[in-house]
Amino acid sequence: MRPAARALGIAPRPLRRRCFASPRASFHSTCVRQQHHSSIAQLLQWKPINKVDNVVVNGFVRSVRSMKSNRFVSLGDGSSLAPLQALVPTDQAEGIAIGAAVRLTGSWVSSPGTAQSHELHVEQVEVLGPSDAKTFPIQKKYQTPEYLRTMPHLRPRTPFNSALLRLRSDAIATLTRFFASQSFTQTHPPIITSSDCEGAGEVFTVAPAGSMAGDEKDGGKNDTQEPFFRSQKYLTVSTQLHLEALAQSVGNVWTLSPTFRAEKSDTSRHLSEFYMLEAEMSFVDDLGSVMDLTENMLRALSKDMYETAVVQEILTRSKQSSGEDLAPADEVRGRWEGLMQPSWPRITYTEAIALLQQNKAESFEHKPTWGAGLQSEHERYLARVVGGGVKPVFVTDYPRDIKAFYMLPSPKPAEDRATVECFDLLVPEFCEIAGGSMREHRLAPLLEAMRRQGMATPPLDTHVPGDNGSSGNSLDWYVDLRRWGSPPHGGFGLGFDRLLSYLSGVQTIRDTVAFPRWFGRCDC
Amino acid sequence: MRPAARALGIAPRPLRRRCFASPRASFHSTCVRQQHHSSIAQLLQWKPINKVDNVVVNGFVRSVRSMKSNRFVSLGDGSSLAPLQALVPTDQAEGIAIGAAVRLTGSWVSSPGTAQSHELHVEQVEVLGPSDAKTFPIQKKYQTPEYLRTMPHLRPRTPFNSALLRLRSDAIATLTRFFASQSFTQTHPPIITSSDCEGAGEVFTVAPAGSMAGDEKDGGKNDTQEPFFRSQKYLTVSTQLHLEALAQSVGNVWTLSPTFRAEKSDTSRHLSEFYMLEAEMSFVDDLGSVMDLTENMLRALSKDMYETAVVQEILTRSKQSSGEDLAPADEVRGRWEGLMQPSWPRITYTEAIALLQQNKAESFEHKPTWGAGLQSEHERYLARVVGGGVKPVFVTDYPRDIKAFYMLPSPKPAEDRATVECFDLLVPEFCEIAGGSMREHRLAPLLEAMRRQGMATPPLDTHVPGDNGSSGNSLDWYVDLRRWGSPPHGGFGLGFDRLLSYLSGVQTIRDTVAFPRWFGRCDC
Repeated sequence: MRPAARALGIAPRPLRRRCFASPRASFHSTCVRQQHHSSIAQLLQWKPINKVDNVVVNGFVRSVRSMKSNRFVSLGDGSSLAPLQALVPTDQAEGIAIGAAVRLTGSWVSSPGTAQSHELHVEQVEVLGPSDAKTFPIQKKYQTPEYLRTMPHLRPRTPFNSALLRLRSDAIATLTRFFASQSFTQTHPPIITSSDCEGAGEVFTVAPAGSMAGDEKDGGKNDTQEPFFRSQKYLTVSTQLHLEALAQSVGNVWTLSPTFRAEKSDTSRHLSEFYMLEAEMSFVDDLGSVMDLTENMLRALSKDMYETAVVQEILTRSKQSSGEDLAPADEVRGRWEGLMQPSWPRITYTEAIALLQQNKAESFEHKPTWGAGLQSEHERYLARVVGGGVKPVFVTDYPRDIKAFYMLPSPKPAEDRATVECFDLLVPEFCEIAGGSMREHRLAPLLEAMRRQGMATPPLDTHVPGDNGSSGNSLDWYVDLRRWGSPPHGGFGLGFDRLLSYLSGVQTIRDTVAFPRWFGRCDC
Repeated sequence: MRPAARALGIAPRPLRRRCFASPRASFHSTCVRQQHHSSIAQLLQWKPINKVDNVVVNGFVRSVRSMKSNRFVSLGDGSSLAPLQALVPTDQAEGIAIGAAVRLTGSWVSSPGTAQSHELHVEQVEVLGPSDAKTFPIQKKYQTPEYLRTMPHLRPRTPFNSALLRLRSDAIATLTRFFASQSFTQTHPPIITSSDCEGAGEVFTVAPAGSMAGDEKDGGKNDTQEPFFRSQKYLTVSTQLHLEALAQSVGNVWTLSPTFRAEKSDTSRHLSEFYMLEAEMSFVDDLGSVMDLTENMLRALSKDMYETAVVQEILTRSKQSSGEDLAPADEVRGRWEGLMQPSWPRITYTEAIALLQQNKAESFEHKPTWGAGLQSEHERYLARVVGGGVKPVFVTDYPRDIKAFYMLPSPKPAEDRATVECFDLLVPEFCEIAGGSMREHRLAPLLEAMRRQGMATPPLDTHVPGDNGSSGNSLDWYVDLRRWGSPPHGGFGLGFDRLLSYLSGVQTIRDTVAFPRWFGRCDC
């Protein structure tokens, strides 16, 4: 192995036990030479002065140009946006077709072309997975996201979609490191749950195949047999309630978990199945700690990932290669820089309403009114004016009556306007990207808040634990958490797919998820 | 801050903005002193020679003993099996009740008792979450797992269950690091899927609340409106098929994803919702590479985790504290040691049958017969004889007719006995813990295998991509993967909850999952 290869961490290919020149072929005379073998991303970084022989590379043919005695092959393996250029002698080029999976062996030499520093002069071609070029639906030219979305099983093969897979993977690993460094316990809250509290009808129900899920009292009744579960079950819309139980065990917890909504919305922001990053902290003093965690996490994520290969590829991609469905690279760079900023502004909802009402520069379609939700136009204005269009902005302490029952009242209510200790995190243009709150940790006020919202509640002073299946109140267990040792606690939730949209510049969330599901669509 | 505290990484508690002596209380005179604050696990490791004042600790009261002028309080916070001992002056002990969430401030001093090196002499008590000791269902004495399972929302508060949460978290983080080090891309395959191929009826269907899921042709038809999805949808039973698509994008992929089975089985090994660790490798030469990955992963996991606090706690737990529902600690230690062994034996199914048939020492209830599946008694015998009861054993190349359609034929079929390139990984006593295979990557043989198993197939040479919703064959997309560039590939799946059972000694899988779901049971 040459020192240059060793320095790059490019492993020599071990003696191969079998080749794939034809499926299940026996040993091949060329297979027992020692060869270099690595990802295309690694190879493209490797710029030896002298020619290196016996370099082996696996990949998919992205395009083929026929020249006099050679074919110029663009090869990709998902490890980089940029392809590897390979020169294949015409007499070796049988089976070199767009879409084919091939193993190429040859010399890695500096290239006379300007598009790449080095190229592979191929001596041996193995077609490991043939392709019918006439029917292969992925082309090198621009294809609309709508068209690509009709074939989610093939779409990941486009260079930008493979970059999105790598971005997701790096983000998961970075978050896992971050939370471990903060002594948070990563958990697996349940997907099938007993309560549909937040969904208010926009939830999915679950039942064994062949059973009737329509019977509300009995989800999962088989025609001839007992029901699978004792009562109607749902796909979770948020893991928060269960995280609160786990936070009473180990203190600080987090999860990256699939969640579901049966919303009949056909917009670029809605998915029926999406990953939520949720965290819950126990023994926290106030909302400030929850905002600190959210801010520190996003800042650590952006700082740790900014210099990585995949992020730099996304920020320097040529516009042409990915069409108009991406936000401009400069704008996306600004998003990363915004998240890396220190000290994000925090204002209350009441202050935000005052700011919006004072505004003279802009006419809003919806008049900003205390007690109503903030419209997108309001959020965009706040991100621009309060955050300078750079820093994310926390808006806190929304009116109690437009927020969830479990939120803790704000410590100092402003003039009979009851608010709760919660926040929305707004980022420029994109607006809300995360939300969190302190939770009502006291039993009596929680029951009062539930009654105020018309929810069924158990009695204040009696409850038999273990009776969840039959009590009729699917949230009895959640109330129970307050009966025995419920310290002040709070947490946040962040739509992970939406975050990846924001960080990649992909305009619709459907294109950041490999197999998106939304109203009317669940291909593959 | 004292140097000793600094060396331990115990952060001084920042100036506190609010106390919780009473909920939402105003500033407290004692709150502005600088104080030490850390987890109980950290505190228990901290053995200063001199008394340290102003130490603050949060936790839940596990038990209280009344002595003359003090209460002896056992305090836990989920960070360790061992509790902290705190001496609370009787006149300060109001609200110190089992289950209560408290914040204690006092001096950390060496203890005259033999059960702990240091103890906290409390000067200030804040009851952050009161508890009704009379009704608190978790007691310090042994409680059966059946009883604890009736209240999954409270069960995590027992010391051993909090250790299981930490074990899971550490395992996730370790696996994430392992796969990142191997350049595998972590992915999020879909949960809601179109195919029920493997479940053969034992799958869950999904439909929006208020709709009829019973209509097989139309899962999710609202009485008055169009159906949510175009056809029946299911909860995934395995992410493998989707991982294969993603492996054609970025090469090597993995996931830790929830999967579901509607099996009406009420055993210690069955859950309706469980996490599967699945990995898929592209451009692999043969099954050996897949077994290498499985073996390397489990060895790395066990080596990286063995010395951690949580594993050592699990291995040194007193039997009394956790009842008879755990395998003996020595046996569990042997499991960890087995996974750390090099070079696990690999034998074929055909060799295994021969071994079983030669066996004279043991009489089997089921006669070992080529062509039939291996029974548990057979697997236990093989783990004992081939693995010496220590090393895990790979059994490979099972008969084609008892395995899934997508498996690749073995390269050298033995005397007309068709086998496929697959493995089961057996561990002592517990038996199968993982399974994997090479996948049939060639179009025509895949279609032939599907037809042999009576599955609907698309024509060999025509297919319109993007037509998945209406073709009637829910696996057309999977066949499609072979039309264009399908290199040899393979992977494995491992039941993550079962692995945690094995590594913790918990006898039933229901007790390794915080909120277990199985036939008839989905509490909370």
